[in-house]
This record gives sequence, structure tokens and C-alpha cells, in this order.
Amino acid sequence: MRYWSFEAGFGYDNLVLREGDSPTPGPREVLVGMRAASLNFRDLVVLRGQHGRAVQPPLIPLSDGVGEVLAVGAAVTGFAAGDRVSPVFFQNWEGGAPPRDLEIGRLGGPLDGVLATDRVFPASGLVHVPSHLSDAEAATLPCAGLTAWSALFGEAPMRVGETLLILGTGGVALMALQLAKSAGIRTIVTTSSAEKAARVSAMGADLVIDRSVTEDWAKAARAASDGGVDRVLELGGAATLPHSIKATRVGGQIILVGNVTGNTAELFLPAILTRQMTLRSVTVGSKQGFEALNRALAAHEIHPVVGQTVAFDDAPEAFRALEAQATFGNICVQIGD
Amino acid sequence: MRYWSFEAGFGYDNLVLREGDSPTPGPREVLVGMRAASLNFRDLVVLRGQHGRAVQPPLIPLSDGVGEVLAVGAAVTGFAAGDRVSPVFFQNWEGGAPPRDLEIGRLGGPLDGVLATDRVFPASGLVHVPSHLSDAEAATLPCAGLTAWSALFGEAPMRVGETLLILGTGGVALMALQLAKSAGIRTIVTTSSAEKAARVSAMGADLVIDRSVTEDWAKAARAASDGGVDRVLELGGAATLPHSIKATRVGGQIILVGNVTGNTAELFLPAILTRQMTLRSVTVGSKQGFEALNRALAAHEIHPVVGQTVAFDDAPEAFRALEAQATFGNICVQIGD
Amino acid sequence: MRYWSFEAGFGYDNLVLREGDSPTPGPREVLVGMRAASLNFRDLVVLRGQHGRAVQPPLIPLSDGVGEVLAVGAAVTGFAAGDRVSPVFFQNWEGGAPPRDLEIGRLGGPLDGVLATDRVFPASGLVHVPSHLSDAEAATLPCAGLTAWSALFGEAPMRVGETLLILGTGGVALMALQLAKSAGIRTIVTTSSAEKAARVSAMGADLVIDRSVTEDWAKAARAASDGGVDRVLELGGAATLPHSIKATRVGGQIILVGNVTGNTAELFLPAILTRQMTLRSVTVGSKQGFEALNRALAAHEIHPVVGQTVAFDDAPEAFRALEAQATFGNICVQIGD
Amino acid sequence: MRYWSFEAGFGYDNLVLREGDSPTPGPREVLVGMRAASLNFRDLVVLRGQHGRAVQPPLIPLSDGVGEVLAVGAAVTGFAAGDRVSPVFFQNWEGGAPPRDLEIGRLGGPLDGVLATDRVFPASGLVHVPSHLSDAEAATLPCAGLTAWSALFGEAPMRVGETLLILGTGGVALMALQLAKSAGIRTIVTTSSAEKAARVSAMGADLVIDRSVTEDWAKAARAASDGGVDRVLELGGAATLPHSIKATRVGGQIILVGNVTGNTAELFLPAILTRQMTLRSVTVGSKQGFEALNRALAAHEIHPVVGQTVAFDDAPEAFRALEAQATFGNICVQIGD
Repeated sequence: MRYWSFEAGFGYDNLVLREGDSPTPGPREVLVGMRAASLNFRDLVVLRGQHGRAVQPPLIPLSDGVGEVLAVGAAVTGFAAGDRVSPVFFQNWEGGAPPRDLEIGRLGGPLDGVLATDRVFPASGLVHVPSHLSDAEAATLPCAGLTAWSALFGEAPMRVGETLLILGTGGVALMALQLAKSAGIRTIVTTSSAEKAARVSAMGADLVIDRSVTEDWAKAARAASDGGVDRVLELGGAATLPHSIKATRVGGQIILVGNVTGNTAELFLPAILTRQMTLRSVTVGSKQGFEALNRALAAHEIHPVVGQTVAFDDAPEAFRALEAQATFGNICVQIGD
Repeated sequence: MRYWSFEAGFGYDNLVLREGDSPTPGPREVLVGMRAASLNFRDLVVLRGQHGRAVQPPLIPLSDGVGEVLAVGAAVTGFAAGDRVSPVFFQNWEGGAPPRDLEIGRLGGPLDGVLATDRVFPASGLVHVPSHLSDAEAATLPCAGLTAWSALFGEAPMRVGETLLILGTGGVALMALQLAKSAGIRTIVTTSSAEKAARVSAMGADLVIDRSVTEDWAKAARAASDGGVDRVLELGGAATLPHSIKATRVGGQIILVGNVTGNTAELFLPAILTRQMTLRSVTVGSKQGFEALNRALAAHEIHPVVGQTVAFDDAPEAFRALEAQATFGNICVQIGD
Repeated sequence: MRYWSFEAGFGYDNLVLREGDSPTPGPREVLVGMRAASLNFRDLVVLRGQHGRAVQPPLIPLSDGVGEVLAVGAAVTGFAAGDRVSPVFFQNWEGGAPPRDLEIGRLGGPLDGVLATDRVFPASGLVHVPSHLSDAEAATLPCAGLTAWSALFGEAPMRVGETLLILGTGGVALMALQLAKSAGIRTIVTTSSAEKAARVSAMGADLVIDRSVTEDWAKAARAASDGGVDRVLELGGAATLPHSIKATRVGGQIILVGNVTGNTAELFLPAILTRQMTLRSVTVGSKQGFEALNRALAAHEIHPVVGQTVAFDDAPEAFRALEAQATFGNICVQIGD
Repeated sequence: MRYWSFEAGFGYDNLVLREGDSPTPGPREVLVGMRAASLNFRDLVVLRGQHGRAVQPPLIPLSDGVGEVLAVGAAVTGFAAGDRVSPVFFQNWEGGAPPRDLEIGRLGGPLDGVLATDRVFPASGLVHVPSHLSDAEAATLPCAGLTAWSALFGEAPMRVGETLLILGTGGVALMALQLAKSAGIRTIVTTSSAEKAARVSAMGADLVIDRSVTEDWAKAARAASDGGVDRVLELGGAATLPHSIKATRVGGQIILVGNVTGNTAELFLPAILTRQMTLRSVTVGSKQGFEALNRALAAHEIHPVVGQTVAFDDAPEAFRALEAQATFGNICVQIGD
């Protein structure tokens, strides 16, 4: 097998391509031949060595991928050679409430990730993947896809006719837009350019707010929804949170997912207290959520947006492309032939 | 004002058209000029005097209707003359859990219903109605429309990609089909004839099972869904319930709404015990549900199916048409000019 | 009737005792002879004229009170003369989700409050009160009591065996402690003095942390609960929120109720993102919650803590006592004889 | 190792004591030295060969037990030699919704059970057990204990001050009584004799109805609760269900757990339709529920009732004792020394 690994430390210089023996699955394990991987913002945090003490080299990066079952252990049921599968982001969260030791089960750090030709996973950490998806499309699901699902339909599912405000046009945002549309949820999307605005309009957003034109996007979103939106997919962080609160109705929810604009937000308490808001953080989701996402994608033949695909041997280029923030859609790595 | 009333007793012979003074709204009340009404199966039960001791003549029948605000009391906020409104089926259930004295708040028995030119309601018992609907369409919402909404999106909302089995093609069934479709829910509908099958197919049902052809519809529904449907809209009753159970997946829900095929069902307990099923009865729903329904209808410009409209002076004909069960869609009464 | 009212403006100077005619209830209304009232921190905000534009003089202050039904309107069911009742804090929130115009229904501003000998309320805005309570005790329920209930058992009820961290020993905090104890929930309470610590220990708190001794109370709370507490009753605000987050387990909830230590909190997003926390704001609660609270109080004969009672004619003294923050327990006003 | 096994078929004649090699745990597995087991009604169904085609000999019986970790596989975290643990009833249900293939994961059929000195389980199928319990007490938790927990606090947790009606005094019923009491839930228990009535009264039941004296127990239960009980723990089945419905309030829940009085119940639909009831079947519960149960038991030092303990070599006597229905409390088998 071949795999990319942070060896002596983090950063591009320490990300090296290695070869080794292919692992053998134990009685409850599955050997997967990886076919594609996909990058998330978190993978940059890992690359930069900023993920905290729990994530240490040596480490195979990337949580999101898809592959084909090559072999199964003796006690495995439900999977057979040839099945196309994805590993679950949290290998220790099947459903219900997140376990207290959630962080130790994360692929791509602290657990080895999917940027490898061969990987062994416990059978309990795999799901089947919808057949209408390409490998690159399927590779985007474990983190970006599931995060969007959990934000909309995890705890407290949105209902048809409600309004969702989506901040930005990253991988989670685009998947949320597609899912919301399939579920009859009204969508308002903020973007930073006319070009991106045109893209998300074409994808069916009910209202697109170009922040380069409409500075007070929160006011615009509130005006376009009866007393405020029902939910915000808060992918911004420190700079956007106060505005997201302003855009939300009494009793509404703000789903905290990202913090790309900064870690420390100022929270004006009276604004959320008098309006009975809930700020709920969503970190990816459970295996059951992944399976539900897959059923929805299959039912509506939704294709995640793949913006760029890089060859396995050029994997570092995928990290650089993500840093450049110029790609509309997910950035993937083709692993198989 | 003019109104139909069961006077000396129930039955067609006792349903008479009367005239009287138009009522004056109190400080927290609203005078509504009714424009249309719609019939439900329950209205036949009332007509037949089978609704139990709590429902007694004299009684203005029918729970479902729409009208225009003619005057408001001094303490009323939120409504003004000219607004188009519908009364809420349960005048005493705003949201949350149903109150313990739920039954006393029901329009069309024990409370006077809407088959009248003028009616006064407390402001708390009214909602605004979507503007894209005709009067007859809007008249179908308070009971039939809201029942469908509550079954799908009340407690425990369905999620995009799940599968719903709908029994039959009555008013609740058709609205459930339309709502499910707008929400990305897969639908399986059972019907009794090829003609109705063609109608619901045209409305977008994903699978239609003609019971006159496919006797074991439960098996067919189960085969068409991964291990059983997620939810059944159980509009049949005694004759269909055992089959509905068979069609449902582990952990699935059967929503009990009607009992047109009989009151006493045989319930084979091991079938629901080993499969962790929930049988949940839904009786219409709350005012908050009605408002949520209206938002969904407006967002997707859904038009309830009106099969037949009868003039106010011919209102008994509407009851007879419902008894005949030959109309596809709701049977309405035009009240205004 | 006699009543206290902010007349020309807010502040002690404008709070005057007046006399007027007793009001007459409309058809759906109830005349209540008030017997006692109770003060909350919010009433100080109103006194100081800091509640925002919606709250304007003239205004009868105070939301929390209890009284006796003197007369009922013609259409009223469920209440009769002689019943002991409390008005609901939000006169427009019966149950379920809060309405979008929630703020207009608040007693004690913008609606007239209970610091009066006679008040008329719509029947829908009243509840019966447990008989084991004194008038002063019952008067504390509408805001302080219900807030504690909603925080623990509203949306997402706590379960026996879970751990609750309560910040401080105000009226909401003490009621939460009593309710938690009756429900088998482990409690950790922070206080500012050894004396208060002794009081809450005597009331049954499982662990009391005296902040004057243990500076890092969040660490202590976390150490005393398996990986963090399940829920925090966050009554502090800006100064305490970051610590509350630190004390909470993966997937835990922080209930935002107050902001006595400041309005603008710094929110370190990674702390809540990686631990999947929910920050849920609770503003009092609905009428259904009030009824559920009352059932729990009655079942366990819980008596809210009344720290001080002031005569009706001396009502301004109650505001001053609250400002002094020296009373352990609620500050009440005796209205009847 | 030694183990009891149904070999050639089911029934007492086929239940034989065997010896074999102790198994070796794989990389994600744990070897447990069993210390005690406990019997449930379902184990009699298995003994009688009535459990359906999926449960076949050879089979080690019994789902409920406790033991000590003897060895762990290389990839196991969270367990170490010497830990006291119980296997989870459903080895394939960690949390959230039950999986569609739930039935294949059941201990004691189709999977081998715990009536053995040594057993290997996947680490994901084990939980730690509260230290205040004896082995026999702890052995009762996986099925009887968790069923009671799920019925009261699983989906839709009961709240302090609500009323629970418990049918009978079997293992699940007694644990439900103890849990309800610790959670401040009012309890009404039906029994068949004055002697058992005295026992459950001593355990703290708020009201005990001796069915040998009070024939219409449903009416008595309803009279003792404001308009009907909030929830029924329906352990009877066909003969009791109609009465349980009668005892329940509008919007209440009937938790279907057992069917000892018969499999086919007559369900009078109007009774549940007009009162908006939910019939929810509970089959044991998930691993997360087991952990929550354990926290509650530990917090309140609750001891399950063990009525009788039989030595490992006399295990068939435990089945006979259960058949005799003369024991108050759980019947256990001591496995270790």
C-alpha cells in the first residue's frame, strides 16, 4: 500500500508519500481500497499543526473518502468484497448523543485518515454509499455532507416551508443548499461576489445576498423572512455571529459550524435572551445521520459539487488549492486508478 | 345572518336553514363573514348523531371554513377588517401538548361550526390564510389540511428521503401526498381503482398500489422501501391496521387518523413489540401547526384538491356527496356571493 | 381599586400609588383580586427605564403575583369566583414554540402588571395555583418559578441521575435547586459566601462551591462530574459564560437565563464547537410549562423560598431590597389584607 | 470454560452443561469471566422454542449478566482487566434510532447469551456497572433494568410530578417503580394480591391497586390522577391494554412492553383517536440508555430487587422458578465462586 503521512511534524515539508504492507483485517474489521478523498477546512488546521495536543504525527491525513471493500473479517456482517463504502468521520459515534470521548474517534487526526491506497476500519465505522455518485462526489460526504445534514435534519429537523440562511458557499454550505432545496426549505445564501451569486442562484437558492453589494445582509435576510429566519447555518464565526443573531426570528436556531473569520466572538446576551434563541454547535454527526443523508441523496439524485480533483501523487496540491480559496465546490483527491 | 343548524335532532330532516341577528364581537373577539366551508368524514358522524353525548343540537355544523374579518373587538391585535382568516379546529389548543379538556374546544360540535354567513370567534382562535388559495381551497385546511401536516411534521417531523405510506385518496391523504412531495419525502399511495391510481400518479406519488390488483399491498409497500416504510398514514382503521404494521420498518411510526373501515382493530402485539413501533394518534392539530402548514403551502403554492363545490342554500347536498364517496378531492360549500 | 404605577416616567420618583374604578371583565375575561406579588431582576430593569422602547409609562409594574377570582365573564370556563390563580408571564404563549410577537404579551411591561388590588386578565392567561403554597410563595411562580422549570424540564427535559450546575443563589437558582432535587438530578451550586453556602447545603445541594474560596469553580464542577456537567443554569452572563462552557461535558447544554454580570460575553468558539455544546436561552416559559411546574410543586409540596415580605403601601421598599441584593430568597409584596 | 447450551433443540431436556476451551479475544474484543446472570420472561419463550425461526440451537441462553474483564484485545480502549462489566442486550444498538437489523444483535438468541463462565464480546457491546451493586443485582440490568429506563426516560422522558401507572410487579415493573420514585414521578401500581401490595407500598408506590379487590383498576387509576395518568407501563398485553387506554389522559402515552396475558389485543380505535394517545413499544433499549440508567442507579444507590439466586450448576431451576411466578423480584444465577 501507499499512503501520505505527516512524519516528523506538520506542514507541507513533513507530508510525505510512503509505502508499506497492506494491513490485514481482524475478525470485526474491513479492508478498504480507497478510491477518492476530499478536503475540509479542518484538514488545513491539521496541516498547520493547530489542532491541539491530541493530534500528533505520524498521521495519515484527511477524514473524508470513499473506497471499495477488499476483504472482511470473519465476524463481519453487512459488508462484502466489492461494496463501495465510506468510513464514518467519528468512528465512535453510531447515533444518539455524542459520546464523552468523542474526540478520540476522529479520522484524519487523532486517528489515521484516508489519504492512502489501503485502510482497515472496524465494520461498525463504515457505511454504504449511494450508487449514483462518482467516487469524488461520494468522498465529500463523511464530513462536509454530514455536517450539512446534521445542521438541518439532525436534532430538531427543519420542516418544509421554513427559511434557512446559509453563510457563504463552501462545501458544507453548498450541500446544505442542495439538501434544503430537496426538502422544500426556503434558502437565503450570502456570497462575496457576483460570480458566486450567479452559481448559487443557478443551484436554486431562493434569495442570494451579495455581501459586496448589500453590506447589511442580516437586515436583508430578516426582511425577506417573516420576522427573521428560522435557522442560520453559521459558517463564519466571530465576524458574522452577531449579524446572524440579528437575522433570526424569536425562538430560532443558529447552528454553529465554523469559525473561519475568527475564534472569539462577541455575544450580546440581551439579543438572544429576549428572543429565546438557541445556539447549537454541530460537529459533523453520527453514523445514523450519515445513513439518513445517503437515503436523501439517493432519493433525489443529489450530486455534491466537486470543484477540482487532484491525483493521489499530487495530494499536497489539494491542500494548496484549499488554502487559495478560489475553488467553488469541494477539492478531491483521486486515489485509485 | 343566515345559518344551517341541526335543530330538533340530527339527520338530514333536522338540518334547517335559519336567519338571525348577526352577532357582535366582544373585546377579544372577531366577527367573520364566512366565504366557504369544507366537509370531513367527522361531519357525517355528527350528521348521524354518532358523535357521543358531548355533541348536541342545536348545532351549526362543519369545522372547516374560511372567511373575511368584518369587525374586531377593542382588545384585538393582529387582525383587521378585510383580512382573510380561518378558525382553528380546536379553539382551545394553541400549541404544545393538547389540553386535557381538548374535546370541548372543537368547532362543528360541541361548539357551533362554520356553516353560517356570520360567526364570532375569539381572536386567539383564528389564523391568516395564504393568499394564493381560492376560498374553497382555503376552507379545506382547518381539519383535513392540518391533520395531514400534524401526521407528517407535528411531533417527530419526517425528514427528506424518508418513505411515507398513505392509505387511500381522501382529503387528508391527498394533502399529505402534496405536502410530502414538497418536502422531498418518498410516497407510496394505496387506492381502490385504476382511475384514482392515475390521479395520484399524476400528482406525483412515487409508487401507487391499486388494491384491486395487488391484494397484499403491505408486502408491496415493504418491498419498495428498505426494510419497511418509515411512516404510515393510517386512514383505514380496523381492516387495514394489521397490514400497515406489516409494511413498517423497525422503529417506524404508524399515524392513526381514521377508522372508516371499522372501530375495533385486532392488534398482534408481537409484531409491534419486536419491531419497536409507535402507534401515534393524530387528531387535527394545534393553531401553531396550522400556521406552519400555511407557510409551507404558501412557499410551494400548493393547492388542496377541491372535487366539488355546492351552494350555501344546497348545503345538505354536500353531505350526500360525501356519503356517496364518489368525489376525488374535498367537497366544499360556497357561502359568500 | 388601588394600584402602583409609573406615571410620568420610570424611577422611584415616578412610582406612585393611585386609586381608580375596579375594571369589569369582558365575556372571556376574569377579574382577579390580587393577594401578593413578587419581584424579579427584570423589574429593576423596568424601574431604571432600561427595558427598551416597547416598555413605556404609564405602567403598573411587576409580572409575578397571585390572587383570587372575583368575577368571570359570560364565556369563561374553568374558573370560578374564589379560585386562587396566577396570571401567566407571557399572556400570549400557551405552549409549543414561542410566538414571533412574544414580547408584546409580557406582564409588567409592556402590559400592565400585578402591583394592584384588582386586575382583569383574559381567562386564557391564568392558571390555578397549588393549595399548599402561601400567597407570597405562590406569587414567585410566574417568572422565577417557571424560568427554573423551563430551564430544566422545558424543551429537552433533564433525566434522573444527570448533573446540573447552578450559578448563584437568586430566586431562579433556588427554585431550580428545589426542582432538581425533587427530580433526582445531582446539583452543584456556586455561591459567593460561606453563609449562603450553608443555606444551599441545608437545602440539599450535592456540592456547593464557595467562589470566595474556590476561584476556579468551573474546574471544580467538572472534576465533580464525569467529564463535565450535563447542564448549566447560566444566571451570570458575560463574566461567567466562558467558565460555564469549561464546566460542561461534550454534548451538554448551557441554559442562558440572565446577564447580571454584563451584557457582552466573549465566546471562544472552538470550545463549544469541538464539544458539540448547545447554548439555549430561556425566557420564562409558556402557560403549559406553568401548569406542569405546579403539578411538580404540588406532588412534592415544594415551597419557594420567600426571603422578605413588604406591605402593599410600602411597595417601593421591595425594589430597594432587591437592589441591595442582601436577601436570600424572593422578595414579595403582600397585597390583600 | 463451562456453559449451558440448548443443544439438540429447546426445552429442559435439551439444556445441557458443557465444557470447552475458553475463547481468545480479537483486536477489538474483550474476554469476560461471567459472575452472575438473570432471567427474563423472554428466556422462557426461548426455552419453549417459541421465539421464531431466527433463534436456533445450539444456543447459550440468557441475555442478562455481569462479569469481570479477564483480557482485552490490542485495539480496545476504555476497558481493562478487573473491570466489572455487563454486555448490552442488543450488541448492535449504541444509541439513537434502533437499526433495521436490530433482531440479529440480541444476546440469548440469536446470539449466544451469558449462561457461561467465559464469554467474548466486542468492546462496543459492553458497559461498566455501578460499584454499589452486588453481582446478582447488576445482572438484572441489561434487559429488565434497561427496559424500565427506556420506558420512562428513553424517547420522550417523563418529568417530575407526572403520574405513571405500572401494571404488575415483575422485574421491569419493580425497577420502573424504583426509578420513578428517584425521579419524583408519582406511581400507581396494580398487583394481584395483598401480600404483593404490601411489598410495593413499602417500596414507596404512591398508590397500590389490588386487582383482587378493585376490579376496575383503570377507573381507580384515572380517578387518582388529574384526568388520567400521563403514562402506562403496559406489561400485560391483550387482557389489559383496553383498560390501560381508559386510564390514560388526553395526549398520554402507553408503553407497550409485554404480552404475558395474550398476543392479540382488541384495540378500540375511537378511544385512542379522540384522546390523541400514543402507543409506543419499547424493546429494551440502547447502550447509551444503559449508561444513563447506570448513572441514575449510582446517584441514588438503587438496588434492583433480587428475589432468588440459583447456583450455576442448577441453572434449570432458575427457569422453573420463573415459570412458577411465585418469586417477588428477579431470579438470578450465581456463576463465579
